Amino acid sequence: MSKLRFSVSISLDGYLAGPDQTRQAPLGVGGEDLHAWAFPLVAWRSRQGLPGGEVNASGQIIDETFANVGAYIMGRNMFGGGPGPWWATDPPWTGWWGTNPPYHTPVFVLTHHAREPLPLEGGTTFHFVTDGLESALVQARAAAAGKDIVIGGGAHTIQQYLAAGHVDEVNVSIAPIFLGGGERLFDHLPAGIKLEQVRAVDAPGVTHIKYRVAR
Amino acid sequence: MSKLRFSVSISLDGYLAGPDQTRQAPLGVGGEDLHAWAFPLVAWRSRQGLPGGEVNASGQIIDETFANVGAYIMGRNMFGGGPGPWWATDPPWTGWWGTNPPYHTPVFVLTHHAREPLPLEGGTTFHFVTDGLESALVQARAAAAGKDIVIGGGAHTIQQYLAAGHVDEVNVSIAPIFLGGGERLFDHLPAGIKLEQVRAVDAPGVTHIKYRVAR
Repeated sequence: MSKLRFSVSISLDGYLAGPDQTRQAPLGVGGEDLHAWAFPLVAWRSRQGLPGGEVNASGQIIDETFANVGAYIMGRNMFGGGPGPWWATDPPWTGWWGTNPPYHTPVFVLTHHAREPLPLEGGTTFHFVTDGLESALVQARAAAAGKDIVIGGGAHTIQQYLAAGHVDEVNVSIAPIFLGGGERLFDHLPAGIKLEQVRAVDAPGVTHIKYRVAR
Repeated sequence: MSKLRFSVSISLDGYLAGPDQTRQAPLGVGGEDLHAWAFPLVAWRSRQGLPGGEVNASGQIIDETFANVGAYIMGRNMFGGGPGPWWATDPPWTGWWGTNPPYHTPVFVLTHHAREPLPLEGGTTFHFVTDGLESALVQARAAAAGKDIVIGGGAHTIQQYLAAGHVDEVNVSIAPIFLGGGERLFDHLPAGIKLEQVRAVDAPGVTHIKYRVAR
């Protein structure tokens, strides 16, 4: 059955991005280190078209993250890279990911700025949703056709879907670093969200934990 | 070799105690749930003098926490239970733990209020240290005679020792709950603390992660 889920790397102090995020450093100061566990791996490199790499317990986690995904949802900052009129640039901003983004499915971007759908190579089409998170979820569910829907981020978008009770599965990869500031993943949440730990995986330089959201 | 270490249960949003801590609810609203994974276990119950219980992967974690400990250090709030003149009660406050506290070693309490050492049953003696965290560590190291020193808490005391570069090992048990407020364990830390993940243990209802602090 179709799940709404997300997978995020966070620091031990709970940040998914460090302080002082900019277009040049979209993960903030130190934020790249959140993903240091992934960069050397075959499972990561092969998705970037790079040869070789290492194999360890994290590979399966990466593979699961990308398996059975029918659609993505993301916030405007994740598409547009923080504040700034990405919707008004000339030529129009097409996201961070070049001509062939790594999604290969419809991607629903929450925004206040209406825009025609943006089809790119490899099956990725960005759809711009201006009527809220419920509408984006309905559209994503239809597009996903029974496959899972993944919330790409950022923190605010994830928090909104958690708060609204729509998320089925939470995946966090806890990196052994302190960022000391930035964007905290689990913040501004209402009381009463119940989780069940499904599994934890000990991998080199990271711990992956999967939770089911209880109803 | 003698290590300075600590073991703390935290929520997925990073709190070691919930909001609205009082003497009646020293872990704050919802804070008892941080330890729900431990309460049913033989390893926990036997330390409370209770019979029976369950056995799972968390048992070894609890046993390791209490093994090879030569001394404890704790903040005044942990000894005294939050704000209030515990040092001026009549009869004098002797801590939370009754006549036979679970420490069975010297315990060094950081405080601004000088007081004679307080020996209780079972080998626990509380020493009140008024000249700072370095002094408490020197005294604890001497008392521990080569065994480990454990920081009992709370968050502020742990943060001070982390910031000063004295901590060798960090142990967190991540409970599958959100507390949404309270006392955050990893807060107010300076940049530059380097961790290495030693191991993660998947246990029912909790994930235990051990880190070495890199020098």
